[in-house]
Amino acid sequence: MSRTVIRGGLVITAAEEVRADVLIEGEQVVALATTGSAVADGWTADTVIDATGHYVIPGGVDAHTHMQMPFGGTTAADTFETGTRAAAWGGTTTIVDFAIQSVGSSLREGLDAWHAKAEGNCAVDYGFHMILSDVTENSLKEMDALVGEGVTSFKMFMAYPGVFYSDDGRILRAMQRGAANGGLIMMHAENGIAIDVLVEQALAAGRTDPRYHGEVRRELLEAEATHRAIKLAQVAGAPLYVVHVSAASAVAELATARRQGLPVFGETCPQYLFLSTDNLAEPDFEGAKYVCSTPLRPREHQAELWKGLRTGDLQVVSTDHCPFCFSGQKELGRGDFSKIPNGLPGVENRMDLLHQAVLDGHITRRRWIDIACATPARMFGLHPRKGTIAPGADADIVVYDPTAPQTISATTHHMNVDYSAYEGKQVTGRARTVLSRGSVVVDAGAWLGRAGHGRYQPRATCQYLG
Amino acid sequence: MSRTVIRGGLVITAAEEVRADVLIEGEQVVALATTGSAVADGWTADTVIDATGHYVIPGGVDAHTHMQMPFGGTTAADTFETGTRAAAWGGTTTIVDFAIQSVGSSLREGLDAWHAKAEGNCAVDYGFHMILSDVTENSLKEMDALVGEGVTSFKMFMAYPGVFYSDDGRILRAMQRGAANGGLIMMHAENGIAIDVLVEQALAAGRTDPRYHGEVRRELLEAEATHRAIKLAQVAGAPLYVVHVSAASAVAELATARRQGLPVFGETCPQYLFLSTDNLAEPDFEGAKYVCSTPLRPREHQAELWKGLRTGDLQVVSTDHCPFCFSGQKELGRGDFSKIPNGLPGVENRMDLLHQAVLDGHITRRRWIDIACATPARMFGLHPRKGTIAPGADADIVVYDPTAPQTISATTHHMNVDYSAYEGKQVTGRARTVLSRGSVVVDAGAWLGRAGHGRYQPRATCQYLG
Amino acid sequence: MSRTVIRGGLVITAAEEVRADVLIEGEQVVALATTGSAVADGWTADTVIDATGHYVIPGGVDAHTHMQMPFGGTTAADTFETGTRAAAWGGTTTIVDFAIQSVGSSLREGLDAWHAKAEGNCAVDYGFHMILSDVTENSLKEMDALVGEGVTSFKMFMAYPGVFYSDDGRILRAMQRGAANGGLIMMHAENGIAIDVLVEQALAAGRTDPRYHGEVRRELLEAEATHRAIKLAQVAGAPLYVVHVSAASAVAELATARRQGLPVFGETCPQYLFLSTDNLAEPDFEGAKYVCSTPLRPREHQAELWKGLRTGDLQVVSTDHCPFCFSGQKELGRGDFSKIPNGLPGVENRMDLLHQAVLDGHITRRRWIDIACATPARMFGLHPRKGTIAPGADADIVVYDPTAPQTISATTHHMNVDYSAYEGKQVTGRARTVLSRGSVVVDAGAWLGRAGHGRYQPRATCQYLG
Amino acid sequence: MSRTVIRGGLVITAAEEVRADVLIEGEQVVALATTGSAVADGWTADTVIDATGHYVIPGGVDAHTHMQMPFGGTTAADTFETGTRAAAWGGTTTIVDFAIQSVGSSLREGLDAWHAKAEGNCAVDYGFHMILSDVTENSLKEMDALVGEGVTSFKMFMAYPGVFYSDDGRILRAMQRGAANGGLIMMHAENGIAIDVLVEQALAAGRTDPRYHGEVRRELLEAEATHRAIKLAQVAGAPLYVVHVSAASAVAELATARRQGLPVFGETCPQYLFLSTDNLAEPDFEGAKYVCSTPLRPREHQAELWKGLRTGDLQVVSTDHCPFCFSGQKELGRGDFSKIPNGLPGVENRMDLLHQAVLDGHITRRRWIDIACATPARMFGLHPRKGTIAPGADADIVVYDPTAPQTISATTHHMNVDYSAYEGKQVTGRARTVLSRGSVVVDAGAWLGRAGHGRYQPRATCQYLG
Repeated sequence: MSRTVIRGGLVITAAEEVRADVLIEGEQVVALATTGSAVADGWTADTVIDATGHYVIPGGVDAHTHMQMPFGGTTAADTFETGTRAAAWGGTTTIVDFAIQSVGSSLREGLDAWHAKAEGNCAVDYGFHMILSDVTENSLKEMDALVGEGVTSFKMFMAYPGVFYSDDGRILRAMQRGAANGGLIMMHAENGIAIDVLVEQALAAGRTDPRYHGEVRRELLEAEATHRAIKLAQVAGAPLYVVHVSAASAVAELATARRQGLPVFGETCPQYLFLSTDNLAEPDFEGAKYVCSTPLRPREHQAELWKGLRTGDLQVVSTDHCPFCFSGQKELGRGDFSKIPNGLPGVENRMDLLHQAVLDGHITRRRWIDIACATPARMFGLHPRKGTIAPGADADIVVYDPTAPQTISATTHHMNVDYSAYEGKQVTGRARTVLSRGSVVVDAGAWLGRAGHGRYQPRATCQYLG
Repeated sequence: MSRTVIRGGLVITAAEEVRADVLIEGEQVVALATTGSAVADGWTADTVIDATGHYVIPGGVDAHTHMQMPFGGTTAADTFETGTRAAAWGGTTTIVDFAIQSVGSSLREGLDAWHAKAEGNCAVDYGFHMILSDVTENSLKEMDALVGEGVTSFKMFMAYPGVFYSDDGRILRAMQRGAANGGLIMMHAENGIAIDVLVEQALAAGRTDPRYHGEVRRELLEAEATHRAIKLAQVAGAPLYVVHVSAASAVAELATARRQGLPVFGETCPQYLFLSTDNLAEPDFEGAKYVCSTPLRPREHQAELWKGLRTGDLQVVSTDHCPFCFSGQKELGRGDFSKIPNGLPGVENRMDLLHQAVLDGHITRRRWIDIACATPARMFGLHPRKGTIAPGADADIVVYDPTAPQTISATTHHMNVDYSAYEGKQVTGRARTVLSRGSVVVDAGAWLGRAGHGRYQPRATCQYLG
Repeated sequence: MSRTVIRGGLVITAAEEVRADVLIEGEQVVALATTGSAVADGWTADTVIDATGHYVIPGGVDAHTHMQMPFGGTTAADTFETGTRAAAWGGTTTIVDFAIQSVGSSLREGLDAWHAKAEGNCAVDYGFHMILSDVTENSLKEMDALVGEGVTSFKMFMAYPGVFYSDDGRILRAMQRGAANGGLIMMHAENGIAIDVLVEQALAAGRTDPRYHGEVRRELLEAEATHRAIKLAQVAGAPLYVVHVSAASAVAELATARRQGLPVFGETCPQYLFLSTDNLAEPDFEGAKYVCSTPLRPREHQAELWKGLRTGDLQVVSTDHCPFCFSGQKELGRGDFSKIPNGLPGVENRMDLLHQAVLDGHITRRRWIDIACATPARMFGLHPRKGTIAPGADADIVVYDPTAPQTISATTHHMNVDYSAYEGKQVTGRARTVLSRGSVVVDAGAWLGRAGHGRYQPRATCQYLG
Repeated sequence: MSRTVIRGGLVITAAEEVRADVLIEGEQVVALATTGSAVADGWTADTVIDATGHYVIPGGVDAHTHMQMPFGGTTAADTFETGTRAAAWGGTTTIVDFAIQSVGSSLREGLDAWHAKAEGNCAVDYGFHMILSDVTENSLKEMDALVGEGVTSFKMFMAYPGVFYSDDGRILRAMQRGAANGGLIMMHAENGIAIDVLVEQALAAGRTDPRYHGEVRRELLEAEATHRAIKLAQVAGAPLYVVHVSAASAVAELATARRQGLPVFGETCPQYLFLSTDNLAEPDFEGAKYVCSTPLRPREHQAELWKGLRTGDLQVVSTDHCPFCFSGQKELGRGDFSKIPNGLPGVENRMDLLHQAVLDGHITRRRWIDIACATPARMFGLHPRKGTIAPGADADIVVYDPTAPQTISATTHHMNVDYSAYEGKQVTGRARTVLSRGSVVVDAGAWLGRAGHGRYQPRATCQYLG
């Protein structure tokens, strides 16, 4: 069994900041010891990684990605291979992607299809959530089975009528089932039925530019759906995880519910923390690059999202990584914003953007690791393997240089998409060395990983409950 | 022109309590003067009504009745003739009933049908709201026309899928239209889609008794729908009137919206103020007498409804009068609570029950007149003809004996239904003399009115806006 | 007994708008009848006032004035004679002024002194509140006596330590006494103990200009004191009336309490609705003209105050009229804002400014009368004599021209003060004819009143309780 | 340097649960390694502690004790020697006690006096907060010095007028100073001025029994003071720590403030979580045993406190250990509850009671450690030495038997007081082996510690800020 020791760094987890050396045997962390102590110095290893002046942090857990997902007549541009490689470059060593049940098909068919896409292609570890598009007696039964095999979370949509949309009755049934079998319902909370009326009216009135995407998907309709999802969960006696929260008023709904002691959780994404409707309004159809749902909001929402992350009313930052090239993909919506494929690239940028938020004073270092590593791991049943550095955990570890400058750009990123949502943004900090289950996959700008190293991770149920 | 003078009573309106004589010429009030003044004493009249020791109050305005309405394979037991006569006996001199658009039909067809039922049959004045069941381009256009002819309010349902239910998109469209043409949307706010799941599950589990009607129609699902209706109205820029609010948490939603300055209004009904789930649980299927939707709630909700009436978060008390005989009608639901026709009799009892509430300390005398007469008149565009006593107002006046004892009972009431929801309840106070547009229709226990005296009242738009 | 009839106007009360003639006999309204009816036309009178094209409204009730009040080493510039005359010019026919108990003296001594100042000097009717500066066993007993003789409200101060300030224990005792004897506690709600620290620090730092008056009297410290007063009232089981609410967050505290059903009331003043910290920042010490406590707030608070008046969370607009000349009085605070006498003139401008608010869309006509006439009358036990037009009410009536333009100015106003807080402001509407208990005191720009016409009004207890 | 290894336990910190062996060198933890790994097995040690089947947890940090404190003419019964020994028996290895500034004296005098009492007498480590009774220019300056020497928190009282009470101006000044020098203000939040009125009234009315202590110290007056302290802190730009929160409504005030992002923290105590006014009402003056301030509340408050601990609106559970013997001390208040010395014993029971709460389902194991060890350590600047188990931390460690039954009783406890507040209560779990800085002080029921082992801990400033 190979032995690696990471020496001299500041080990940061969600809870502690410790000057310690980390000993890895095979794929797992086996020990931590005070740097410079006789114990630590006594460790021999095949590989010694010098982390002096660096942070030693858990690899990121991105709980919301859509690799090579079909959407709106095209397909998200990153494959599991390119996407997980980009993730690793950015210090993320686990993704949880969304397998899709098509209407009329079984969960199993969808899950099998996604396993087929991912297997043998991933650079880092991965798990699956299941998108539940068609709630039937049969698919409810399948939920039980999937929970048993480690697919323990199910995404539903209050938006996208005719595609992924479930009505409140179907949502209630699925939540009831989840309450019984431990499956966590993840909700896309927007009132899509009402939004589609506003979309139709906007297009009829000639408001076709990308910025109208942001206008018709009204903040009030995100808050409304968030409130409704919470109430349905309350009726079902089920927990709830709301994905990609972008509106301040939706955060307020979550906060109110949490104050009542309800097991309600919220995720936001870097695009809502760093971008705004100003981007959607960029001229020459450039706004299309920023079309995603829930949409970007006016700039003043950002402060409320940061506050939500500090107060704990939001718990997770994922990417909702779903990249479409501007050329040929985003362009499908020229003249009709409703035809722009929804989604942004981001899996590679999350850890760095959040580190920048530490430097900007929005969050502490420990909270950075909490929202990006530890909590998503616990939320989706991956703890203690993922999200922390402790004896027994998988050796998914990033040696992070907190002082390295970088300029985010499509010219340098590793995602398979022709633009960056953060083009030209300057941030400080980046992953220097990345280990996935003990193997170095990135080091000092060199790719040392391989497709197929990444392994499927069956997940336990949500670890914030019971 | 005949002249009537009412002498010596305490004239109570929503705003004043004055010792004054009231002079009526023809169908209208023409003057008030201090009792005992030379001016008052100088009035000669064809009819002099002695109101010494009595209140002189505006006739009640019941803004929510369903006379001879088809529902669940049967028809509400009061005709316009029997129902309006019973109203008059109880001191109510105006009703606003609901004409129904059937799915696939026009508003016009529905309105015409209801005019045909009412015309020539009513003992007191009446107007119509319109139930909007089928939102189409055509029915939206018809809304404009109806507002023009005095049907200025439109009821929609978030419950009863497959019957009256409209989805959020249709609701949004109708609210937008109402915002433009002045029509007020009245909402039955219950999440019927979710409720139907719970109904199905309850029945499947053998929970078929009437009390399960109350259990499956969860309070949270009334509050949720109330919240959603408010948000949709906010998106549409429209006002909103929520009918038959029964849950404390729904009152809280209204209060929150009103505090934000939104034009949101709420109505409750005597059954929610005086009855509870205890009644729904009465044995031997007697609970069926109390089946209505929204359902009766646990007793502790009553205090919150009274508080809402005092704080102004609720503005109107109507009856939702929709009587079905126990024998032959309510009994349709033996063995399946979902087949019990929804509705209670009450049009005759409202003014007396609310007077009892004055005696019980829940509300003041002036607030009694406000919630039962003045505000419903203003809300639905009947002011200043209805709801007050002032020069120029219709002489719809009740000489009310505040000390008369009565026992409410089916054996003595005038509604065409074989039970009373308040059987045996003892209250103090009752109408002694009732005038409808200057004509005495009830006096000292004698019926002096006639079918056909009541006249259709075209209504202005809501008088609480703009 | 003289008879006056006011013909052809639109009679507006808090509740109704009626085309009616008003008949006055002696000092009281005796009848209203439909304009043009035989009844009305049959009325003969000594004086006929033509109100065609005008409003006929109740005379204003200003429940918060400080005529010739000693403060900070000087005395408010309006005497009871000049102040009540100015009130009448502005359409206000009743004031409630504050008699002051000095520390170490009895309530009786203070009340007697104020009676002596007012008696024989007032142009319109007046009542007294009592400022309670020294809570002792004896002064608590005196409260009972004063309530008995029509002084039914007692103002206390959480500000001005060493002058009027009472600590929470004294406040609690007085509230308990008021709960027992019906006296209403009126509260100046600012945390004066904390404010005085900030004043001292500001002066020590050389921040001596008038605008620092607004800065040190922090909004949070008004909201805090409002909250505290509410809690103390809750402990005492007593109602509470908060005077001169200026901060949005203080309105929020009142709204929260009212939503809980607590008998809590709030007053604001025209200066908070129309002026702001921009005025306090006027150069050349001009800001001193606007120094009052609570202080003017940033402009954005105005919208919240208007909203509070619309939602009913605020109930009364009084003036807190307490005029000090700029020259010689306000100037006492040059170089030390804490020495500027606190107070603004306004008793003459209130009715017109609030009518302008009707034209500006902030409130309805009826709400104008409600907040300026009817509710202050009820709040302080003057209804039904004052605040409305109805048989039996005092004939305090204003014939108001809603289209007359005017420019507010010290050059034309009748208050005894050398500046106007609204200098140059153009408003539409003004009183044309003013009657006080049946006597015309102002007509078409002529003064027809006299000192001594105004009569002391013993008051009943607050009419919003019990 | 001695070496100790703790083998085979479940290491629980606020963030992790890990099967690991813990290696201690001298006074500190030097390494953790997976139990059974070659690395761990290779460790040699002078002492090997077998933790199989046990938890290995950080020693408790009790941030609120009053050893041998003079109060009400008597002195708390535990000395630093007896009190810290009892703490150790109960698994608590650090206390932060309160040095007292007397009115008229300097902070220095108080601190010196407390150092003198503690030095050489403590069984475990200790630090000091400072009670600030007399805010003067001089004592504000002394605050700076004390922060510099590790006394970084200052308790103030809104209760106890004439003893510890500070008015809002003094509180504001101290908060401003703390905002500048990093000192954290700890607040006893009860409106003592109002309470003293109620005390006087109760005694005058003959309500002298201990239960009236709970009645006069009204919940509303705790909530009010909490709100006020928050607002003063907001004005000062300072953080706030509210001690011994007992009322549900006070938790609500904290929650509201925290939701706004304010740096506001709350502590509760076992007595509020496990006892209630039922205890205060125990007959034969037994209620006196439970007299403390804030007082015990009705039982239904407990659920809200537990919820606050789960949602994070409360962060710390301390004991407010302040024991007075029933005989001779509590008895001072026979016939006058206001003379009962305020305080309960508890320093020995806290860890076990909170473990019982884990078993009862109120909190998770990790949250147990968080509220009892990790967060108090961070809050008061003791992290990373105290409150966790990690390389570099002090070896304050408890080997905890989660299955050991015990019955709490004065007959077996080690506190120097003649009764237990939890007499007869059966709980599961107790400390088996306790290490203080690497030394075993308790093992299997034997006392191995010594007075003087405990060392003064200068503290950094609050670690939740900046």
